[in-house]
Amino acid sequence: MEVKFQAWDTAGKPIRCKAAMARKAGEPLVMEEVEVAPPKAWEVRIKILCTSLCHSDVTFWKTPAGPASFFPRIFGHEAAGVVESVGENVEEVKGGDLVLPIFQRNCGECRDCKSEKGNACSKFPVQFYEGMPRDGTSRFTDMNGEIVHHFFGVSSFAEYTVVDISQVVKMSLEIPIDKACLLSCGVTTGVGAACKFARVEEGSVVAIFGLGAVGLAVAEGARLCKASRIIGVDLNPEKFEIGKKFGITDFVNPTSCGEKSVSQVIQEMTDGGADYCFECIGLASLMADAFNSSRQGGGKTVVLGVEMHGSPLSINAYEILRGRTVMGCLFGGLKPKSDISSFAKMYLDHELNLDGFITHEVSFKDINQAFDLLLQGKSLRCIIWMDNISNGK
Amino acid sequence: MEVKFQAWDTAGKPIRCKAAMARKAGEPLVMEEVEVAPPKAWEVRIKILCTSLCHSDVTFWKTPAGPASFFPRIFGHEAAGVVESVGENVEEVKGGDLVLPIFQRNCGECRDCKSEKGNACSKFPVQFYEGMPRDGTSRFTDMNGEIVHHFFGVSSFAEYTVVDISQVVKMSLEIPIDKACLLSCGVTTGVGAACKFARVEEGSVVAIFGLGAVGLAVAEGARLCKASRIIGVDLNPEKFEIGKKFGITDFVNPTSCGEKSVSQVIQEMTDGGADYCFECIGLASLMADAFNSSRQGGGKTVVLGVEMHGSPLSINAYEILRGRTVMGCLFGGLKPKSDISSFAKMYLDHELNLDGFITHEVSFKDINQAFDLLLQGKSLRCIIWMDNISNGK
Repeated sequence: MEVKFQAWDTAGKPIRCKAAMARKAGEPLVMEEVEVAPPKAWEVRIKILCTSLCHSDVTFWKTPAGPASFFPRIFGHEAAGVVESVGENVEEVKGGDLVLPIFQRNCGECRDCKSEKGNACSKFPVQFYEGMPRDGTSRFTDMNGEIVHHFFGVSSFAEYTVVDISQVVKMSLEIPIDKACLLSCGVTTGVGAACKFARVEEGSVVAIFGLGAVGLAVAEGARLCKASRIIGVDLNPEKFEIGKKFGITDFVNPTSCGEKSVSQVIQEMTDGGADYCFECIGLASLMADAFNSSRQGGGKTVVLGVEMHGSPLSINAYEILRGRTVMGCLFGGLKPKSDISSFAKMYLDHELNLDGFITHEVSFKDINQAFDLLLQGKSLRCIIWMDNISNGK
Repeated sequence: MEVKFQAWDTAGKPIRCKAAMARKAGEPLVMEEVEVAPPKAWEVRIKILCTSLCHSDVTFWKTPAGPASFFPRIFGHEAAGVVESVGENVEEVKGGDLVLPIFQRNCGECRDCKSEKGNACSKFPVQFYEGMPRDGTSRFTDMNGEIVHHFFGVSSFAEYTVVDISQVVKMSLEIPIDKACLLSCGVTTGVGAACKFARVEEGSVVAIFGLGAVGLAVAEGARLCKASRIIGVDLNPEKFEIGKKFGITDFVNPTSCGEKSVSQVIQEMTDGGADYCFECIGLASLMADAFNSSRQGGGKTVVLGVEMHGSPLSINAYEILRGRTVMGCLFGGLKPKSDISSFAKMYLDHELNLDGFITHEVSFKDINQAFDLLLQGKSLRCIIWMDNISNGK
């Protein structure tokens, strides 16, 4: 698909466009008109080309109350788009640039953004915020003039959105837009966690707990790192066939372990535990299972899932002393502005499998189908094409 | 002091000698005669020159029941000695060699001993065993012919002991015997954890929870690694003055934090948390405090204390996702046979401070004084000289 870049005559003015509005927790999204304010200083207004549905959208959409529950709200945080206009002080991108909006901030100036140790921007820490990061306010209003809340600072389930420049990554035009979209959250999280954060070594034994898109992306990353064995753990037996495409060599279904625990089965399969165990669901109990499946003397448990029930991770303190490590990260430990481009290159060089993650495609107007497919465990990633992009083809 | 090596005429025969017997949990040790059997295959009989008291001895000595409680028992696991005789298959040391018996096994042959990743020997994992590692039996009998249990495979509170070759490290004769003794457990654990396991970087901020010998050894290690700030946490205010000698720059007393938690105070002091937090007591709650005191984006919590109450470590799962790591090790993550000699060299090169850890010295017959001093928090390490070594001077 070719995107035609034209001079935008909307700069500086509010834009009326369609958005898939979440009015109430757990209820189907409603296509509504919204008004998207012009970007303020350090902000970028983006015309979304395509977006996809991640489990985190579903988790927050289902949450009826609590400090992270805000309605009405525009969800969506995996997307690719084109810059429509930029606010003051924005020099990094300009109208017409292909960009990814990313939930993980990367101000580039704080101690953490400058450090090699992690990707947790301390100027704008990831929070369950409902507005823009710098002033906390919203750029969306509905047709009654009421405020509509943002999601992760992205809100890509709208034809236009406003995103802080710390969350915008400029992309090369070589990569297809739907593949670029995948790099904006889940797939990058998994591949990055294996390849860059945990640095899986050649010949390692890897166990992956939860074979959604993130878990399969961990497998893809472990495969790229030449792991000798990649064990997938999931309740859904169909995941094994899917997983094989991403390098899964062994499958453990917790419901088939009999009287043994998953960790006992993995300890036995691997003669003492896996070198790397990745938790990709967000359940404290599964994090403990992962930990208990890791080898003494160097075994690493990598937490990627967001525990939304508030349960603490509880592990045997003595087993830590046997040389085990628990570590975790958001967005695969990657810094969006400097790390995403290398994955795009790996895709273009036919090293990284992105195509396999796209199991479905729908039009924006049919966005609720994407929710159904994910809730039924049928899709990995469903690309949602904005209607005016004519399915990107 | 000079040790005279003579031909031993005791090889192959039982040796009768003095031992400080623990007959009942928590009761003063009793000086008794014991019979020490000759070493079996892969075993070494060692004449102890000096030993010292570590908190782990006290912990197990106080434990009246449970799977790790065995009486009568000969405690002691920090020591230096001379090989009296060796069993079949032992070629690594010979009669007259200066050696350290070490609780941490290092068979040198298993996957873990050959790995660079950790020090957890998988052929002989550290367990709360009461006999010798290969056959589980004891080499000690009392004067009634009853079995006396071993401790950590070392049992150095006796004039002679039998130790598996996987737990024996040959030392150069250049290092004074009492300094060598210190390298057999606590000090090496702390210095090794900072310098080799966690690899504290120049300019890092380090927080140490518990300023006993291990905690102060972590400080010594952090000082050697050029940490910019070393925060000590302890309930005993006297520890700050002592700590300064080992590089402690700041002191936090949990009883003086008012309404704030220790971790809040450290987060504020350090503008977001310490780069490295070491737990050196063995309390699950303190491990959680250490974790909560660590920086997002790369902060590492290193567990060194042995949690003896069986409490799990419970931490906020979301805070792990912010790029925090929890890791732990026994014996500072070091492999005894290959790593101890470098610390001996650092001492001889006047880099590593060992002298400061020796706060007291007693004769073997006064071993209960060493317990009193440690229980009262007065000593770091009390060297216990075997009576026939005439205080080593």
